[in-house]
Amino acid sequence: MKPFQKAAFIGIGLINGSLAKVLRRHGLAGEIVAASRRRETLDQALELGLCDSATTNPAEAVRGADLVVLGTPPAAMGAIAAAMAPGIGPDAIITDVGSVKAQIVRDVCPHLPDPSRFVPGHPVAGTEHSGPEAAFATLFEGRRCILTPIEDTDPLAVERIKTLWEKAGSAVDLMTPEHHDKILAITSHLPHLIAYTIVGTVADLEEQEQSEVFKYAAGGFTDFTRIAGSDPTMWRDVFLNNREAVLEMLGRFTEDLVALQRAIRWGEGETLFDLFTRTRAIRRGVVEAGQAYIRQPEDPLAPKP
Amino acid sequence: MKPFQKAAFIGIGLINGSLAKVLRRHGLAGEIVAASRRRETLDQALELGLCDSATTNPAEAVRGADLVVLGTPPAAMGAIAAAMAPGIGPDAIITDVGSVKAQIVRDVCPHLPDPSRFVPGHPVAGTEHSGPEAAFATLFEGRRCILTPIEDTDPLAVERIKTLWEKAGSAVDLMTPEHHDKILAITSHLPHLIAYTIVGTVADLEEQEQSEVFKYAAGGFTDFTRIAGSDPTMWRDVFLNNREAVLEMLGRFTEDLVALQRAIRWGEGETLFDLFTRTRAIRRGVVEAGQAYIRQPEDPLAPKP
Repeated sequence: MKPFQKAAFIGIGLINGSLAKVLRRHGLAGEIVAASRRRETLDQALELGLCDSATTNPAEAVRGADLVVLGTPPAAMGAIAAAMAPGIGPDAIITDVGSVKAQIVRDVCPHLPDPSRFVPGHPVAGTEHSGPEAAFATLFEGRRCILTPIEDTDPLAVERIKTLWEKAGSAVDLMTPEHHDKILAITSHLPHLIAYTIVGTVADLEEQEQSEVFKYAAGGFTDFTRIAGSDPTMWRDVFLNNREAVLEMLGRFTEDLVALQRAIRWGEGETLFDLFTRTRAIRRGVVEAGQAYIRQPEDPLAPKP
Repeated sequence: MKPFQKAAFIGIGLINGSLAKVLRRHGLAGEIVAASRRRETLDQALELGLCDSATTNPAEAVRGADLVVLGTPPAAMGAIAAAMAPGIGPDAIITDVGSVKAQIVRDVCPHLPDPSRFVPGHPVAGTEHSGPEAAFATLFEGRRCILTPIEDTDPLAVERIKTLWEKAGSAVDLMTPEHHDKILAITSHLPHLIAYTIVGTVADLEEQEQSEVFKYAAGGFTDFTRIAGSDPTMWRDVFLNNREAVLEMLGRFTEDLVALQRAIRWGEGETLFDLFTRTRAIRRGVVEAGQAYIRQPEDPLAPKP
């Protein structure tokens, strides 16, 4: 017997689409249905074989489902939960893949018939591409997935979602939603904010300078553009919904940046050298944790992704 | 006949070592000699076959050479030029691979017997590893190399250095040292400065938080650590010797960052969404210019690089 009889994906972009591919590959669900506001997205999902059926009605999608995965931008999750509530059966386990957790828990739980069946989750994986066409089954391999159950959450429901992500190739960690938001503010939200800023600074340059920046981007700028090419709606929601933790880390970063600016202005070589030596040790920590990437040139003519 | 009879590499790390490998692979030099302050570096270079002979004396290294490549940190170039001057013959073409250009031109030219034979250069390529062991012959393939001849520079010398970099697989552009420094401040120096800062901010966290940051680095932070793992001495010299251009771009960046901080604090979702949409277009520009990379997980146990 398959672990799930019917899986409903609410939203079917990069993350949910990739998880649907994982269910297919390992035969983890008898039937897959996708819901999205946009008919075009559903047509793509059907064509790519990500689902067996598709609907724009979330309540219809979740009817009879024993697994429901919310994969919309974070700010939309509350309204989606309200819309699908009438269709949710007593056997359904509900999870999500959103990049912020406290806000989603706060917005989603009040609408669910049984909040103890909600297992909030966040697979720490992604690419700068979005939409169902960007989905691929190996996206989660060797990555980590964080589950943030709250006091009421049913431990058996947590166990089943944990097993699902392990099948996808991820190591699963449990923590509180608040701790998740604090750690991710550092590892993900602040880096995105800074990448968006520097790429925006370049977007304000004159056209002639901009084309030169493209030519010589390999000197470092190119890495920032990859991150700053990520989905605008999702990232707007992340910053608005993890505001305190992001502003706290941003404050620390700005202090450090101003100190470095001062060291450059006053020619304090030793300060620079000391910092650059300490950061090298952090790089080693990331490599040893198996979280480093090497770069490979991207073929501009290759199909995405 | 080979293009060069004797090539002298002053400094034999990632860049000069890789260029030495290019000369070997394509048979572009009859003989290769390396000079370095550190005997250990020279032993490695000999063992790796990067050179036929090695010396700690720059004047001895360049004696009889018709190609001299300066590959030390930028701040050391003036003193190195002075030290090697007694050995430079009338046939020698001198070039360098430094990441800043105006300062190097200013420091090196006064020491050369014939400054018209100096072709300042900068291959826009690299990895976060350094030293002779990090060198590989394909480092420059598909990349760009900038030459910054000054008014006096002999056009024939420029032509021969251009051909050399084309053999290495790079497209060669010519511009003034000042223009180079301005463009690279944007494409390379500012990105490095920002990456060093954010990784330094993390280095100041408590140990427990730090180990969690390592685990979840894949969410964006990991890309910054690669850049912030670059050679400390070289980057100290870059910031101290391209101070004005770096501070100017850093000023623009800081203004933009403060504006974004304000938008997050006041919940201005439209401002965020608009910016994140504009930055996506810049990513496309970089991909179309052939300067984008895709990420591949790095094996923590693999030998460097």
